[in-house]
Amino acid sequence: MPRSPQPNQHAASLQPAVFTRLSPIIAKMADKPVPLHIGDTFLSPPAAARLERVAPILSDSIYAYSAPNGLPSLRGAFCERWTRLGKRDLDLERVHITVGATGAVSAALHAFVLPGEEVLLLSPFWPLVRGMITAMGAVPVEVPFYGELAAGRSVAEVLAPHISERTAALYVCSPNNPSGAVLDEQQCLDLATFCVDNSLWVISDEAYGDYAFAPHQHRFMADLPGMGQRTASIYTASKSYAMAGMRVGFLVGDPLWLESARRVTTHNVYNVPEACQRMVEVAIKEGDDWVANARQTYSDAADLVAARLQASFPRSKGGGFVFVDLADALGERDLLEYLVELLHEGVSLCPGGAFGQHWQSHVRLCYMSVPSERLELAIDRLNRSLDRLRGAPSAL
Amino acid sequence: MPRSPQPNQHAASLQPAVFTRLSPIIAKMADKPVPLHIGDTFLSPPAAARLERVAPILSDSIYAYSAPNGLPSLRGAFCERWTRLGKRDLDLERVHITVGATGAVSAALHAFVLPGEEVLLLSPFWPLVRGMITAMGAVPVEVPFYGELAAGRSVAEVLAPHISERTAALYVCSPNNPSGAVLDEQQCLDLATFCVDNSLWVISDEAYGDYAFAPHQHRFMADLPGMGQRTASIYTASKSYAMAGMRVGFLVGDPLWLESARRVTTHNVYNVPEACQRMVEVAIKEGDDWVANARQTYSDAADLVAARLQASFPRSKGGGFVFVDLADALGERDLLEYLVELLHEGVSLCPGGAFGQHWQSHVRLCYMSVPSERLELAIDRLNRSLDRLRGAPSAL
Repeated sequence: MPRSPQPNQHAASLQPAVFTRLSPIIAKMADKPVPLHIGDTFLSPPAAARLERVAPILSDSIYAYSAPNGLPSLRGAFCERWTRLGKRDLDLERVHITVGATGAVSAALHAFVLPGEEVLLLSPFWPLVRGMITAMGAVPVEVPFYGELAAGRSVAEVLAPHISERTAALYVCSPNNPSGAVLDEQQCLDLATFCVDNSLWVISDEAYGDYAFAPHQHRFMADLPGMGQRTASIYTASKSYAMAGMRVGFLVGDPLWLESARRVTTHNVYNVPEACQRMVEVAIKEGDDWVANARQTYSDAADLVAARLQASFPRSKGGGFVFVDLADALGERDLLEYLVELLHEGVSLCPGGAFGQHWQSHVRLCYMSVPSERLELAIDRLNRSLDRLRGAPSAL
Repeated sequence: MPRSPQPNQHAASLQPAVFTRLSPIIAKMADKPVPLHIGDTFLSPPAAARLERVAPILSDSIYAYSAPNGLPSLRGAFCERWTRLGKRDLDLERVHITVGATGAVSAALHAFVLPGEEVLLLSPFWPLVRGMITAMGAVPVEVPFYGELAAGRSVAEVLAPHISERTAALYVCSPNNPSGAVLDEQQCLDLATFCVDNSLWVISDEAYGDYAFAPHQHRFMADLPGMGQRTASIYTASKSYAMAGMRVGFLVGDPLWLESARRVTTHNVYNVPEACQRMVEVAIKEGDDWVANARQTYSDAADLVAARLQASFPRSKGGGFVFVDLADALGERDLLEYLVELLHEGVSLCPGGAFGQHWQSHVRLCYMSVPSERLELAIDRLNRSLDRLRGAPSAL
């Protein structure tokens, strides 16, 4: 049983970050491709929340340990915004500050799931969640979901076959990374019914909750009937305010289980740096207009992609991505091999396998990572490349 | 098996932070006690590393995701300091940046240990490590250690009875929090031999490695024979540079397992905020004199405690604490009840049970949390209180 020097198989099974095989190639290129593979925005954070503006109001307490649950003032600002948005009242005891949405999803999983249990991953999904589950010795069950609903199947039809005695939790992300799907009211209600009927914990990754594009609306899952106690709702300054570098996430839920999640994060990281929390606090208090403008910018970018990209994909209703099936263009070609070629044609995209095992011919395209002129340029390059691919099978 | 709304038993079993029961009492007090219960320093970080000095050299990259393994420039600065200190050469591939020492210990445990396996905790120990182990579904085996060695027993004598088929790893902390023990060269060699003989992973918490007081010397465990591959060495800016608020830790070890630990932290937190890393980078590059001065300050404080405190404790050879057995004064009294009284007498101390099950009559006293005049005042108050306690059993 003592197995030094072999690391334990759960940790060793974790895959490197999504883009590990392509990054070194880009690093060596003189002319960099347009980076549509990343999951970050080109926008700068709200001006009032920038370091040079916030630094003068910080005290020496930024150098000391801070509250493991997060600053009460930050949690309070989050609750007030919640009320401003017309959602159900929150209080401080239902909000915990984590190291980004990453820390929030991880803490919720650790509070809910035991080794050997199964977690339904509504697919496609945010890449890190699968590794979190396997690292715990639990079992991810990938269920193609958003496309199935779009094709007219019901929530229960799609999910019921995957329930077992060992199913403990379900992970859903709407607005969806990577597909841009936004669940509508009826779909959310059906999902809630299904979770209640099956006594599931729900990890509702609402990282893009501020970025559903009209007429589509984001639904706060925990407000649905029966969902309050069982749902971990996840938000993040990374997406809401273009502040990924601050690593400030929000885990929202019932104190009954949130207390466990808090202890998990106390034991993993102790606390989130106070300076980062204070910057995000300012963003929340003063960033409503910024969010509205960013939403318009991303929505315009989604329109641009929908109008211009000559490929097969559902229109993005929110978030920052489209998920494009290249099967028709690829034929028998290997996706990763093609993505390397595409780098040299000036565009980088993220391979679909990162988002679930069913998406080997898909790519994720991020339309918020560059301003519109660069996005347009990249789409034109991509269109030309796909034309070439479709027209020249014999050259392979 | 689906157990919503009951959190999983591993997470739910985690204990609240050490001082949870005493903090609310202090919060209500008008005259605060001298805070000797905490694990932080009264010193300010190196001036060059303070935010107002570093902010002007930061770029907008602080708002974006950063390298999950840590900035190469920070890891490089750490390696260079290593060489400056005369230790074995390090390279960037052997250094990973974590959210404090907390993140480093957690990642190492996750890389090494599986649910059901046992970890030897050389006791007394840093409180969070026990919870990390139970939260994984692994088993902490607490072994009173530093005092046994001081009493003349050998490493193998003390540890061998606790080895089982399921023992996977060992946690050691020297300079020790909370006892101030510093293992000498022979003890380190014996410990290395024991770990090699039993094929153990070693988590060597060297958070206080910069603060061994002459003539005692800190030993970098991984340099000992047979320890290179099996040892996770842990350092932190929290202790080295009084920058706990930055949450920057260092996990040092063989790439064979460190790659697993890296993926664990990628999945728990993604990355440490770049702004915090840059501040610590400056501290490492320009902080050698600061560390030497801090070491003298803490050493003087340890001398003060040794000379003045009328109680039973081993002299602190390093770190920032003494671990005091109050059994003679307490008699049958409950420790926690007494510590509440002591708050009202103007001193706060940390109850020993946090550092292991064997220390129910002990308290940890931090001598680096206040300047010397305040420390002196607190010790005088504590002496008076203990006199009263010893002299007045009938009043109980």
